[in-house]
Amino acid sequence: MKIAIVGYGNIGRYVLDSVLEAPDMELAGIVRRSAANVPDELRNYKVVTDIAQLGHVDVAILATPTRQVEEYATKYLAAGINTVDSFDIHSDIPSLRKNLMEIAKANGTVAIISAGWDPGSDSVVRALLLAAAPKGVTYTNFGPGMSMGHSVCVRSKAGVKDAISMTIPLGTGIHRRMVYVELLPGANIDEVAAAVKADPYFASDETHVIQVDSVDSVRDMGHGVNMTRKGTSGRTPSQRFEFNMAINNPALTAQILVSAARASMRQQPGCYTMIEIPMIDLLPGSKDDNIAHLV
Amino acid sequence: MKIAIVGYGNIGRYVLDSVLEAPDMELAGIVRRSAANVPDELRNYKVVTDIAQLGHVDVAILATPTRQVEEYATKYLAAGINTVDSFDIHSDIPSLRKNLMEIAKANGTVAIISAGWDPGSDSVVRALLLAAAPKGVTYTNFGPGMSMGHSVCVRSKAGVKDAISMTIPLGTGIHRRMVYVELLPGANIDEVAAAVKADPYFASDETHVIQVDSVDSVRDMGHGVNMTRKGTSGRTPSQRFEFNMAINNPALTAQILVSAARASMRQQPGCYTMIEIPMIDLLPGSKDDNIAHLV
Repeated sequence: MKIAIVGYGNIGRYVLDSVLEAPDMELAGIVRRSAANVPDELRNYKVVTDIAQLGHVDVAILATPTRQVEEYATKYLAAGINTVDSFDIHSDIPSLRKNLMEIAKANGTVAIISAGWDPGSDSVVRALLLAAAPKGVTYTNFGPGMSMGHSVCVRSKAGVKDAISMTIPLGTGIHRRMVYVELLPGANIDEVAAAVKADPYFASDETHVIQVDSVDSVRDMGHGVNMTRKGTSGRTPSQRFEFNMAINNPALTAQILVSAARASMRQQPGCYTMIEIPMIDLLPGSKDDNIAHLV
Repeated sequence: MKIAIVGYGNIGRYVLDSVLEAPDMELAGIVRRSAANVPDELRNYKVVTDIAQLGHVDVAILATPTRQVEEYATKYLAAGINTVDSFDIHSDIPSLRKNLMEIAKANGTVAIISAGWDPGSDSVVRALLLAAAPKGVTYTNFGPGMSMGHSVCVRSKAGVKDAISMTIPLGTGIHRRMVYVELLPGANIDEVAAAVKADPYFASDETHVIQVDSVDSVRDMGHGVNMTRKGTSGRTPSQRFEFNMAINNPALTAQILVSAARASMRQQPGCYTMIEIPMIDLLPGSKDDNIAHLV
């Protein structure tokens, strides 16, 4: 299958790795806002500003900021290209799904949305644990680690030169956001802090905005999750489940996007979240082999 | 949906709990070899020897010994009834799937096979982790806990009055089997041990067969899993994942069977393992609600 990578930032670079390592994929090229100043490692690949310049593309992997996902997906789905994204504003997922569903069905294409690790692989685990113990509480505890979505959000605020948002787990799914900001000349940290705290990304969490001289000195791509569920199967209580990860954040997001790109080729036209697709569709190789080795 | 429970042993009792607690299910009745000597807790339900006596049934949950699954599934699928089972001989899953696939497709019915916790929910986690980090090794470490499939196997051997097989994790997916056997009068422990060790259930594991006066005194339904994967996402190594459970074994198997029964009503005719069905299909409630709460 022919894959286009749309956006070559933090995630896009890792998407390139995963596409090149996939046994069943071919890189059609990379779509960027500008085809000038191409990084050295892309010199052997097509870099274009319009996906139409790449010829036939089966799936566009959207490694854009989350707020640009709907615009790109709408355009590509209508042009006959499947899309996958890691759209991560949980509360807006239902409306994104509804909008892309119509466009995908009308054009015989497939969108898999919110296919990162949370939302994404964590969502699959949450659904599985709910099926295994229908009554009880699942807590998803993130970090400590940098949230890419939250960091991009802070960088979009006026007066911000660079920023990182760290997620600190406080237990039972409660988190603190530690935001480290490098300001542009003349910017005011109190105004930036107010803008950050008012954003839907941060509005419901305890958030601290701290000015630093160098964001680079606090940068670390490691992240983690600890998900727990204590619940009841039938009428039997205290069934305990735990899922842990310690991962390079953009590398995992990228890999799941690439696995979802494969799965998009195996679905009926429409828009899907990861809990709506069979896990086997994420994997290369024959169905029989995967069943024999994994089940 | 109308559910029949086939078999009322260790798992069947817990299946009853899960069916009664499911908001979208109705118990059609219980199929047993004999409708006499009905346990007290079943006095309000239909207990029959032939599923046809229950009237319309949507799904038959096979809580039979694993070696009887194919026989029952074949009969019910041909009669227009979906089936779910927790068939647990890993190496025979592909052939069971192939056989039931034909019958299900020919009769417009659905079979979901090997829908317990391993094979079953663990299989889903294994597939997900492979999609998240395609290169690396997943180790599934079981126990300490009783293996129901292995215990039933030992009980089927000549000379055995009762038996329990305990699974002891030795790390990196290697296990020891500790088999506790109560003999029938005149039986010989060495002959029983030889029969157990020759069975495909035990042939590839270190197995110790120990004679005890009372199997009841070592009985414990608790079980556990520790699954680990250290793998590479794209070209980024050392991505670490861990899945742990500490559970009542038959209660979890039963709950997953019941969730799979629901999912069977949402698939096209055919035979599926759990990695071939979307997780959302296991859950009651509306798709939109589940997406909003879980993704």
